[in-house]
Amino acid sequence: MAVPISAGKWQRLRSLTDEQGRFKMMAIDQRGSLRKALAKVTNKDPKDVAYDEMAQVKALITRHLAPYATAVLTDPEYGYPYSIQHLPPRVGLLLAYEETGYEKAGPTGKERKSKLLESWSVEKAQKAGADAVKLLMYYHPDASDEVKRHQQRIIREVGEECARFDMPFLLELVAYAIEEAGTDTPEYARRKPDLVIRSAAEFSKPEYRVDILKLEFPADLKYTAEFSKGAFDGKERPAVYSLAEVRGFCRQLDEAAGAPWVILSAGVDIEEFLIQVQLATEAGASGFLCGRAIWKDAVSLYPDTAKMEEWLCSQGAYNFVRANAYAERARPWFCHRKFGGPENIELAGRSPNWYVEYAPTA
Amino acid sequence: MAVPISAGKWQRLRSLTDEQGRFKMMAIDQRGSLRKALAKVTNKDPKDVAYDEMAQVKALITRHLAPYATAVLTDPEYGYPYSIQHLPPRVGLLLAYEETGYEKAGPTGKERKSKLLESWSVEKAQKAGADAVKLLMYYHPDASDEVKRHQQRIIREVGEECARFDMPFLLELVAYAIEEAGTDTPEYARRKPDLVIRSAAEFSKPEYRVDILKLEFPADLKYTAEFSKGAFDGKERPAVYSLAEVRGFCRQLDEAAGAPWVILSAGVDIEEFLIQVQLATEAGASGFLCGRAIWKDAVSLYPDTAKMEEWLCSQGAYNFVRANAYAERARPWFCHRKFGGPENIELAGRSPNWYVEYAPTA
Repeated sequence: MAVPISAGKWQRLRSLTDEQGRFKMMAIDQRGSLRKALAKVTNKDPKDVAYDEMAQVKALITRHLAPYATAVLTDPEYGYPYSIQHLPPRVGLLLAYEETGYEKAGPTGKERKSKLLESWSVEKAQKAGADAVKLLMYYHPDASDEVKRHQQRIIREVGEECARFDMPFLLELVAYAIEEAGTDTPEYARRKPDLVIRSAAEFSKPEYRVDILKLEFPADLKYTAEFSKGAFDGKERPAVYSLAEVRGFCRQLDEAAGAPWVILSAGVDIEEFLIQVQLATEAGASGFLCGRAIWKDAVSLYPDTAKMEEWLCSQGAYNFVRANAYAERARPWFCHRKFGGPENIELAGRSPNWYVEYAPTA
Repeated sequence: MAVPISAGKWQRLRSLTDEQGRFKMMAIDQRGSLRKALAKVTNKDPKDVAYDEMAQVKALITRHLAPYATAVLTDPEYGYPYSIQHLPPRVGLLLAYEETGYEKAGPTGKERKSKLLESWSVEKAQKAGADAVKLLMYYHPDASDEVKRHQQRIIREVGEECARFDMPFLLELVAYAIEEAGTDTPEYARRKPDLVIRSAAEFSKPEYRVDILKLEFPADLKYTAEFSKGAFDGKERPAVYSLAEVRGFCRQLDEAAGAPWVILSAGVDIEEFLIQVQLATEAGASGFLCGRAIWKDAVSLYPDTAKMEEWLCSQGAYNFVRANAYAERARPWFCHRKFGGPENIELAGRSPNWYVEYAPTA
């Protein structure tokens, strides 16, 4: 059974993976969270962190860690302009499309509305040579209809914009607490699998035209019986599920994901992330798109850039190499059931007249 | 000294090379010459070679040899639509922009005018995900002014079109005999260095906006004292220069080339091509873009596709691996004097406002 794929999507997705079709990607597109981390380590207010500091830290991390990545996700504001010379040959590029942060919304003011980065577009990303457009959307499947519709509309519009330019669309979904006292609570941990799985199911609908889903790990390992005694951060928490149950959530997530999916690190420590990668790829994830879990400890050494470089070259590189090793068993993206293997792939609209009919813009 | 490079050009050039910035690229965009070869082996008139035969042979060669290439050059007519599933992850893509062949022109009727492939464009190539646009132009620096102006105009226009879309522009220059009885003559061999070097100099002018030059080897090794006794094809020829002189031509070509350059194989046998790669890269070439020298013997096995595959997997792969080994000493493209090393590269228009000012189309 032949599965058609359009020229630009296929061509660019090929640039993001290793030779076997596995994503081992680094995220350095953080803006709000990086600003906060730099403010903390320099004892400043986040708004007083200078543009140059943001750009310099991104460039340093890109320079030392991009060589380990199959692709790098950065942002068009601080990251791309001052880091391009550190992107090595043959490493793919993803560019972020959302404005950092969110607007408080909904009846309780605890819901989140996103917006796109002004003065940026899929057309610009394509011209600049990006291999994919990344969109981070906060999403809670039990948020108010108004907030959900707002988020869905943006995603649908970016999906259409990407389709028009034949650009791969990577959608990142991040849930949040509405009723719970925070995300590090037993209540939220218990709820997380459902939030992550239902969100993945929603945006697997064809109308959103998502090519890769970037998903949270569908549980909180700190609340598993096996790791609840403080295995990762020394803090004891109640156990709300077992690792066997978490494996089940991962399988459910794979069933819900109608497109190849990768996991994000959301700033957990590297040891916890490695276990997430292992469990997710066992269940069918096609790799990871990881930022802070790999490099966050470098930021706490700022502004001592010599120490940062030393850390990045040693521990940072070691973190990345281990994450890559854990992703070796990931499912190649073209083996996701949407495609069923490279032997099924064929060019959409394939014909001797393809080059005539392929439209410059749709 | 900072050397500015635009986002789209840098980003895509990065996709064409190995990790060190060396081009080890395969050409399978032949149309006229492949049609002739298939006609010969099947005892047909070239015009009776079917579309499907062309597409099938291209797909077979792509499938077995693309994994050895850093990038593959194919054509939008026969090659791309039926070969995409055989392009492995992480292999770059170049698409041809010229119509195959040429129109006889000039006062003697022995000059050559080219034209672009109708219904194709840089915009389409970009949307389809190409990493570079390739244009083959026949060019003789002593052709009539009218023919030279015609060829120069096309090249200038494609250079502008590529600049507008921020796409890398690879220009292939092929000379031909006007006064001489053919290209396999001592007269043409003697003239060849001058033709190749002067053409490279012409299209190194900034007005043509060429990013990579794909050049002929600037001499005919069959007419060197060292190889004239039939070393490559058993046929003895007069010696018109020595290998030491040929080394000098290669150095002159490197001086004339104002942009990174690669050599083409023009259908010579693999043993001759390997020496060309060695001499050219010694002089500063950044690698090769090679077609027939690597795979032409497979075509003579057509229509026995099983035998073709056997040949491609063994001798074809061996040819490619050797060409890659010879290119290991090539100059990384960003070390060409135009750039002077990766440490000099910076984004054109780099500023905190880059993402606002970078125009979707220029």
